Parts: sequence; C-alpha cells; structure tokens
Amino acid sequence: MITVHHLNNSRSQRILWMLEELGVPYEIQRYERDPETMLAPASLKKVHPLGKSPVITDGDLVVAESGAIIEYLAHTYGKDTMLPEAGGQQWLDYTYWMHYAEGSLMPPLVMRLVFEKVKTSPMPFFIKPIAKGISDKTNQIFIGPMIKTHLDFVESQLAKNTWFLGEQLSAADIQMSFPLEASVARGIVGNDRPNIKAWVARVHARPAYQRALEKGGDYDFA
Amino acid sequence: MITVHHLNNSRSQRILWMLEELGVPYEIQRYERDPETMLAPASLKKVHPLGKSPVITDGDLVVAESGAIIEYLAHTYGKDTMLPEAGGQQWLDYTYWMHYAEGSLMPPLVMRLVFEKVKTSPMPFFIKPIAKGISDKTNQIFIGPMIKTHLDFVESQLAKNTWFLGEQLSAADIQMSFPLEASVARGIVGNDRPNIKAWVARVHARPAYQRALEKGGDYDFA
Repeated sequence: MITVHHLNNSRSQRILWMLEELGVPYEIQRYERDPETMLAPASLKKVHPLGKSPVITDGDLVVAESGAIIEYLAHTYGKDTMLPEAGGQQWLDYTYWMHYAEGSLMPPLVMRLVFEKVKTSPMPFFIKPIAKGISDKTNQIFIGPMIKTHLDFVESQLAKNTWFLGEQLSAADIQMSFPLEASVARGIVGNDRPNIKAWVARVHARPAYQRALEKGGDYDFA
Repeated sequence: MITVHHLNNSRSQRILWMLEELGVPYEIQRYERDPETMLAPASLKKVHPLGKSPVITDGDLVVAESGAIIEYLAHTYGKDTMLPEAGGQQWLDYTYWMHYAEGSLMPPLVMRLVFEKVKTSPMPFFIKPIAKGISDKTNQIFIGPMIKTHLDFVESQLAKNTWFLGEQLSAADIQMSFPLEASVARGIVGNDRPNIKAWVARVHARPAYQRALEKGGDYDFA
C-alpha cells in the first residue's frame, strides 16, 4: 500500500491527484505546517532525512522529490496512460516539462515569495520602507522579468495543446500543476494569459482532481 | 552533429563534460554573459525562447533544460554506461538525483547569491547597513539552515559510494556536478564535508572533464 506523507498547502497535493487519476489505492499521513514559520514539522524527518513533502512510501520503498515520485508512479502504475514511449518527441517533451517545472519555473516564484516575506516581516518602523524598497526593486529588475519570460513561454506552449503533451493528460501535467496553480492563485497569472488560466481550470474540473482535493484537506491553490 | 550553446561560467559546462565522457562529437557555440548584469545575451533567444543556457541542437532537435538534455544524451548515446535499467533501485536513485540537483539543491544556492547581490549593489551609504542586515538575517534564519540540511544529506550519501549510484559514474553525477562544484568554489562546502570535496576532486581529475574544461573556456568552479 502506498502512503503519501502529505503536507497541507504543498507540492504534495499533485501526488494525491496523480494517484486518483491512476486509480491506485493509497493512504494519507497528514502533516501540518508550523503556523509561524510555515515550514514542515520535524516529524517529516523520520520519513526522509530532508524532512520535506512530498515523500511517499510504497512497501519498503521511500521515494522523495516531486519529479522522482511522479516518474516512479508513471513507470510503475501509469505506462499505458501517463508516460509516453521512450525516445520520441513526446518523450522529449515529457522529460522537458518534468524538469522544467521545479528546475526553472518554481525557483523565481519561490524567490518572489521570500522577498514578499522580507517586506512583511516584523521590523522597526524606520527600516520598513527600506526593506520594501529593496524587495520591490529586486522584484522589478530581476525576479519579475524572469517570471514574465517563463509565463509567456508556458502560455505560448499551451496555445497549441489541450495538455502539455497534446490531447491526452500525462505525468507532465501533474508535475506542472503546482507552479501554475500557485501562479493563478497569487494573481501572477491573470486574464492576460488565458491559456494558462484555461489549463488550470481544466485541471480543477477533473473528477480525480476533486477527489484528491476532498481527501487532501486545506489547499489554497485550487 | 550536436551543437552545445555554451554560456561561460554556467550550467552548460557539465554538458560538455558529459559529451566528452560519451565520446560523442560536438561543436560549441559560445555566448558570453553581460559583464554588468551577468545574464545571458539576448542572442540565445534565437535558439530557444527562454534564452537560457544550456541548450543543445542535435540535427533538427532543440533540447533545453539541464536535466532534460542530460536525460536525452543518456538515452540516446549512453544507455550502456550512463543510464541504469528502468525500474530498479539504481534507476530510482538516478531519477531522484536528476530531479534533486535543480529542483531542491540549486534554488537555495541561487537565493543565497541573490541576497549577496542585494548587499553589494550600489546604494546610498545610509541604506547599506540595513540592506546588509536584511540579507544576513535572511541567510541566517532561512537560507543558511536550508543549505546546511541539503549539504549534510548529500555528504552522508557520498559517504556510501564513489559515485552517486555506486561504483560507476552515471548521468546523475553529471547533473549533480554543477551545484556541488559551485558550493565548493564559493566556500560553502569546506573541509567539514570531506566526502563532497573528494567527490568534486574525483570529477575534476577525470580526463574527459579536463578536455571539456579546455574546450569550454572560462569556468570559475573547477
């Protein structure tokens, strides 16, 4: 039996969605973020030394890291639906999006969040405007343009297809869902990027997604 | 013929190394960072809309994103040496490190660099100590502990093996080389992490690595 070590409001929501799409039975072990630091609780370190979510166990196997978990599930339970055959253009696209989601798209989104946090952290009133200035300037000249380049690129790719690899949902969609959901939920993607918005709406409309949402508990990005 | 669109001092150095290990012929198209912004030149956008390095062309194919390029090369030219058979523990480890390098280890290293940049950017003298304070505090309470957790984890993994998957070099080592080289070169990894240091030294001692270095030009991390 698969256990998903599931942190609320996190990257692990997409693992629940994938398991629902695959129809593979699983159970959820819940973890709650520390309400002050928003970090995962120390108890997650008992499952994997990094103490991060998502991580799954399947019998004796422990698999961590979103991309690796999704690839493991696709190879083990989803060869006929979620994973294109090795070697062709679809496989290249699959490999690309699997790496792109966390390797290129997420880092500037997380950086943006950290600089927002810098602005809103408790600090003496005379420092506040300077912190805001530093944060806004970094967003404006560095992080903002990087995010724009990425979202323009994803928008243009989704203009061609219903799903990332074409007409059929694949593991690449599962992996891409978290950064795009977060971008829509935080207002970074608006009506100026209709293809990304429509794609996220299509994800959210899937019955398997809705079952995952019901089982996962709190999730701000749906 | 493969062309590597190679940016100096960047993640694409490891692609040259991999091609040398595989003995696959390739040519290098060079790009230089803007000396002020340190960003890639706009000319890279002609190869791929994101304008990032590495990107390779192989005949009509354009492959971007470090992890995807390395997986493409491993599948196409390295099945007997660089890529474990699908499904077993070695394949799981391979998949893990392929995603971990850019999905988990690089982001805090890049964030650290951005906050260093915040400290050293030109600004009025009365703001400088505040910028330094904000940057140091963020490193101390958030980024620093994250990097420590990761490097402790990698250090413990490399205590078990010569290479990431065991006794033989694999694509996982290629993918992991850039973050670990950068961590050693920037002094984040010191003598307190002898296994990481020894692994980087083993990488740098390989004849294929040295050939890649000679062909690639400027590289601060070797």
